[in-house]
Amino acid sequence: MEKTPKAYIAANKDIFLNDLFDKLRIPSISSQSEHKPDMERMALHWRDYLLQSGMQKAEVFPTAGNPIVYAERIIDPKAKTILIYGHYDVMPVEPLELWKSAPFEPEVREGHIWARGADDDKGQTMIQVLGFKTALALGWVKCNVKIIFEGEEEIGSTHLEQFCKEHKEMLQADVIIVSDTGMVGHDTPTITAGLRGLAYWEVEVTGPNHDLHSGHYGGAVANPINELCKLIASIVDDKGRITVPGFYDDVVPLTKEERDMIAQIPFDEEEYKKQLNIQAVHGEEGYHTLERNSCRPSFDVCGIWGGYMGEGSKTILPSKAYAKLSSRLVANQDHEKISKLVAEHLTRIAPPYIKIKVTPLHGGQAYLCPLDLDAYRAAEAAYEKAFGKRPLAVRSGGSIPIISTFERVLGLKSVLMGFGLPTNAIHSPNENFPLDIFWKGIETVAEFYNCYK
Amino acid sequence: MEKTPKAYIAANKDIFLNDLFDKLRIPSISSQSEHKPDMERMALHWRDYLLQSGMQKAEVFPTAGNPIVYAERIIDPKAKTILIYGHYDVMPVEPLELWKSAPFEPEVREGHIWARGADDDKGQTMIQVLGFKTALALGWVKCNVKIIFEGEEEIGSTHLEQFCKEHKEMLQADVIIVSDTGMVGHDTPTITAGLRGLAYWEVEVTGPNHDLHSGHYGGAVANPINELCKLIASIVDDKGRITVPGFYDDVVPLTKEERDMIAQIPFDEEEYKKQLNIQAVHGEEGYHTLERNSCRPSFDVCGIWGGYMGEGSKTILPSKAYAKLSSRLVANQDHEKISKLVAEHLTRIAPPYIKIKVTPLHGGQAYLCPLDLDAYRAAEAAYEKAFGKRPLAVRSGGSIPIISTFERVLGLKSVLMGFGLPTNAIHSPNENFPLDIFWKGIETVAEFYNCYK
Repeated sequence: MEKTPKAYIAANKDIFLNDLFDKLRIPSISSQSEHKPDMERMALHWRDYLLQSGMQKAEVFPTAGNPIVYAERIIDPKAKTILIYGHYDVMPVEPLELWKSAPFEPEVREGHIWARGADDDKGQTMIQVLGFKTALALGWVKCNVKIIFEGEEEIGSTHLEQFCKEHKEMLQADVIIVSDTGMVGHDTPTITAGLRGLAYWEVEVTGPNHDLHSGHYGGAVANPINELCKLIASIVDDKGRITVPGFYDDVVPLTKEERDMIAQIPFDEEEYKKQLNIQAVHGEEGYHTLERNSCRPSFDVCGIWGGYMGEGSKTILPSKAYAKLSSRLVANQDHEKISKLVAEHLTRIAPPYIKIKVTPLHGGQAYLCPLDLDAYRAAEAAYEKAFGKRPLAVRSGGSIPIISTFERVLGLKSVLMGFGLPTNAIHSPNENFPLDIFWKGIETVAEFYNCYK
Repeated sequence: MEKTPKAYIAANKDIFLNDLFDKLRIPSISSQSEHKPDMERMALHWRDYLLQSGMQKAEVFPTAGNPIVYAERIIDPKAKTILIYGHYDVMPVEPLELWKSAPFEPEVREGHIWARGADDDKGQTMIQVLGFKTALALGWVKCNVKIIFEGEEEIGSTHLEQFCKEHKEMLQADVIIVSDTGMVGHDTPTITAGLRGLAYWEVEVTGPNHDLHSGHYGGAVANPINELCKLIASIVDDKGRITVPGFYDDVVPLTKEERDMIAQIPFDEEEYKKQLNIQAVHGEEGYHTLERNSCRPSFDVCGIWGGYMGEGSKTILPSKAYAKLSSRLVANQDHEKISKLVAEHLTRIAPPYIKIKVTPLHGGQAYLCPLDLDAYRAAEAAYEKAFGKRPLAVRSGGSIPIISTFERVLGLKSVLMGFGLPTNAIHSPNENFPLDIFWKGIETVAEFYNCYK
């Protein structure tokens, strides 16, 4: 047999698919308590499968929630170690009537694998495991490999942070490898190199101590909704810049290399506008939409309420107004610092005729993977071999909390080797994964072991 | 007997009070359908009482709602005619447990009459009727007198406008006299000389066609809440002036005489702030609180909503944002013109990356009584005789829709001879009316007939 990943994969397609289908058949829905036994079953299945797949050791760790599967293959304590993260839980499947085939009866149809979890994250974790198996068969695995699969990713990874803290030694590695993200398109291999962070506040503005008759008081007493609107309006200037002093202090400017890479991402602005039914895009002056939504901070009001919200008219000058404010943050901005900056700014600029209370609700650090990281370079080379194209390093505008948890708790960077496509319908009916990308993904992972030295 | 109103009233106190109590005992609550028979009873009672009180003719007119009582005493078709407006319906009495005496069992206690309707408007309509009776006894009634009492004031005067339209001839008069407003204080006789008008809009701002993930879109797509806040914030400038072009075009400036009169109104700013629990008052630069809340237009957001309003945080860039906006208008501003101006302005300044829909919901004209009107001057002189003080002409910041309806449909100005005090607890438990003001009110009305030539 020819010693290439492609050949090995071709020779094992049926086995590989069967192995994936075994996992897709278990309805491991973490958010529905009736599936609790399926979570256990899934974890045990993984343990056994990983032991059969070249791991020397595999164990199921109970947590206060769903169990965590850990496995390892230590070939040389002095060699480099990668820690592969994935999750075995899936999203609910409702509405069932929209599925063309049963969500937990996987099948191949029109060149795609159809099932809940086909992509997120059973398909992608199998790409990692099968890539490892392939590399192992080819004698390419020169590093230690650790695996951690959790069962609560879709419900907030509730017990993962504690587990990491309690098993720091066991989880020690040089880098974390994650396949739970996407590619920008079928022919555009992609490594997600950045994630935005988040700061989130609830603001309460109080005017008079009770709702007033707008006739008897209107014009003479400050209206908390009017004032809240003014405060919110003042946070972003005409150029789309956030006006809070110090807000941009720690933002690392986009490099020319990054901007060039972003410029290569296929983007059809007309189609984008059409999809959202908007007449124009809007954001910070001097940046492209794909930069604004991933590499630059944002300031969005996620919710607002106050006064009369019913039918018709009620003429009041309300006592209270509320808003949920959020900022997506970028690499190097500390969410706690920003949270404090914005809260203090709002409190400072609030006029004396209202009271303001700013409550930070939630936060998360941004993430940025250095493009000169060994593992990143190995991943880049691996994608290029499998896809025939250098992958783009793109930043995602969203947040994956576990990635910043890993950085904070374990001190480790992650390389996000995602293979999902925007059309894979994750979290939706008819989740699927294109077969050709599945094979190429396995090949990429196998090549990674050959490139990671 | 001495021929003064005071003496006549003193001689008839018991009868007058008994006559009032007869009315206060009827639970004519217009908003509660179980009181429908009481509305009929109340109207018939008034008809009979007015016939006994010097009216030549009194009639109950059915409407699609509660009946309207009309009465008249025509002494000379060439003489001047006044039309007295009042209402015989009252507000509900809940919560009953807070009343110190039963709401429909009137009693005199600590120098006050206690009952639902003691002020609003049975007490005040009786001041008119008893004042007329007194003047009649003194031979002072030189004008024709018409009376219209409706039974739906507390539920929006639903059928009054149609009635006015259908009975224009019958209701012809020189002026309307209304006792349904207040005095600024016990020792400060007051005539309400102005009412603010109203324009009211609902605004809907649409961004993307569905709620978006604030991570994937935040910063790149306009947020309808942020944009709505900007629009609202832009409507009032730093000096508290409304920025809509043309908004102030028709506003009649306050005269020195009016400002001097307003300066005489007792006003304790510290107490005002304490009552509302605010640190500072706020409004248009260059105007006093009592001018801002009555003689100048206002712009208040009565309600706002959009996006996520639940507990905790949800990171969305919402599709929609809504607000209820209102402006109190002042004399000479046409509510339909302003309604159009503001709607067009908002539509014009809305940026291209959002859609805006402005729906006018509601409106009413402001009212201003010329201080040189014969009837106003007569009322002023009458108050001065009874109270020993020239009454202040004050404008109220609220609206009384029927007053502008009368002006529009019948072409008549109204003189608002109110005698209520802020402590009378109208619409609340323990509604009351001070006896001394009741007698002085009757005296004032009697004097009015002597002064109105």
